[in-house]
Amino acid sequence: MAESSAPTAAPVAGSSNGFEANEALADPGYRESVIDLLGVISYGEITAFERLAEDSKLAPTLQDKLALGTMASVELTKVAALHERITQLGGDPFEAMAPFCAALDNFHRHTAPSDWLEGLVKAFVGDGLANDFYREIAAFLDPQTRELVVASLDEDGDHAAFVVTRVRELIAADPPLGGRLALWGRRLMGEALTQAQRVAADRDSLTALLTGGVDRPGLDLAALGRMFTRLTERHLERMGELGLDA
Amino acid sequence: MAESSAPTAAPVAGSSNGFEANEALADPGYRESVIDLLGVISYGEITAFERLAEDSKLAPTLQDKLALGTMASVELTKVAALHERITQLGGDPFEAMAPFCAALDNFHRHTAPSDWLEGLVKAFVGDGLANDFYREIAAFLDPQTRELVVASLDEDGDHAAFVVTRVRELIAADPPLGGRLALWGRRLMGEALTQAQRVAADRDSLTALLTGGVDRPGLDLAALGRMFTRLTERHLERMGELGLDA
Repeated sequence: MAESSAPTAAPVAGSSNGFEANEALADPGYRESVIDLLGVISYGEITAFERLAEDSKLAPTLQDKLALGTMASVELTKVAALHERITQLGGDPFEAMAPFCAALDNFHRHTAPSDWLEGLVKAFVGDGLANDFYREIAAFLDPQTRELVVASLDEDGDHAAFVVTRVRELIAADPPLGGRLALWGRRLMGEALTQAQRVAADRDSLTALLTGGVDRPGLDLAALGRMFTRLTERHLERMGELGLDA
Repeated sequence: MAESSAPTAAPVAGSSNGFEANEALADPGYRESVIDLLGVISYGEITAFERLAEDSKLAPTLQDKLALGTMASVELTKVAALHERITQLGGDPFEAMAPFCAALDNFHRHTAPSDWLEGLVKAFVGDGLANDFYREIAAFLDPQTRELVVASLDEDGDHAAFVVTRVRELIAADPPLGGRLALWGRRLMGEALTQAQRVAADRDSLTALLTGGVDRPGLDLAALGRMFTRLTERHLERMGELGLDA
């Protein structure tokens, strides 16, 4: 991966990101934003589980089925800790998820894979995109929430490697597949951006995490633009890893 | 649960169950038997994952869906350690599972729940029965394999409690359901025994684990009968926990 060609990296999440945990959490607006964030991540994991479990049925071999099923299970086992944190912050996990169900359900409805290979690419691209976004947003969180969000990212290395190997094998055996899957990757990214915009427009409290508050640091419009550029660049790198022109 | 009314308990799994690990594993017959056992457990977990993930779609609420999905995920996350042990013993995990696919697939095909409630009862009864069987057979294993098999049992307490609560609530709201579900429970047990018999008839190496060998302790026919009685008794206790006459 051409890491060096990526635009300016995201701010490194450290304990000195401009506010103290207790102060931040005493602010009801910040607390509400964090509950929103944990809600959307939780529902994202649940729908990812459902889709991966469903897509694993298309697997041509038991090995493939087990690999995709394991990716599905890993997503779901992250939910308990996220829900616990929502409860700690005074929220209800299921109420916190409710505002995001439509957008995430729509994303999956509009990107139902037509075969096993599309399912694999979706698993890899979708998981990667979600992880990148969480890593970006983690920099704007109080240390305890940040740790939770970052901890829910780092377990999937093996499964991602499995996907890369399988997709490359299958394209090598049938090169025209590459063109179809490159289009598929663009559609996934387009639909993700469409739904993300809808969520951002509807949920001021969530966007406030990124844009900051009176006493919390945040991004101006230019910095937000750079963040989206980074997310897009990394998506292109991932497509490249799969051997696809994006 | 009327634990005291159960027939003689299974032999307690201790380190003094009559053979040393190294001796046992040096015996190719024993090793083959253990690979068979780990194969059938692994494929059982994979099919349980598939069925629970599928049945979780029938859930009336997101809470219910998450609970059943989590049960599914827990099953699947046990597979990696079982496969690792098969490899350690010189076997191939996928070859080890192959002889049991037909029986387990048939079990699930013949017991596809027609609604959410049947899915819940199946999850509870199926999981309980499998766990009881593994606990029985663990007594006949070398210490290291036994520990692995026993470790794969003990995580589901919360989820089982969730099922009991939900089934009791739903029957309280609609008492005639109880009769239908009692029949369903009998059908699950009947189908499990049918498939288990088929496996036992086909796989001598697996039954040899229970009946012993020249230098390994085992059960005689009367003791085998008592084991089946214990499994049946515990099934009836579980139906009772759900508030169902079995």
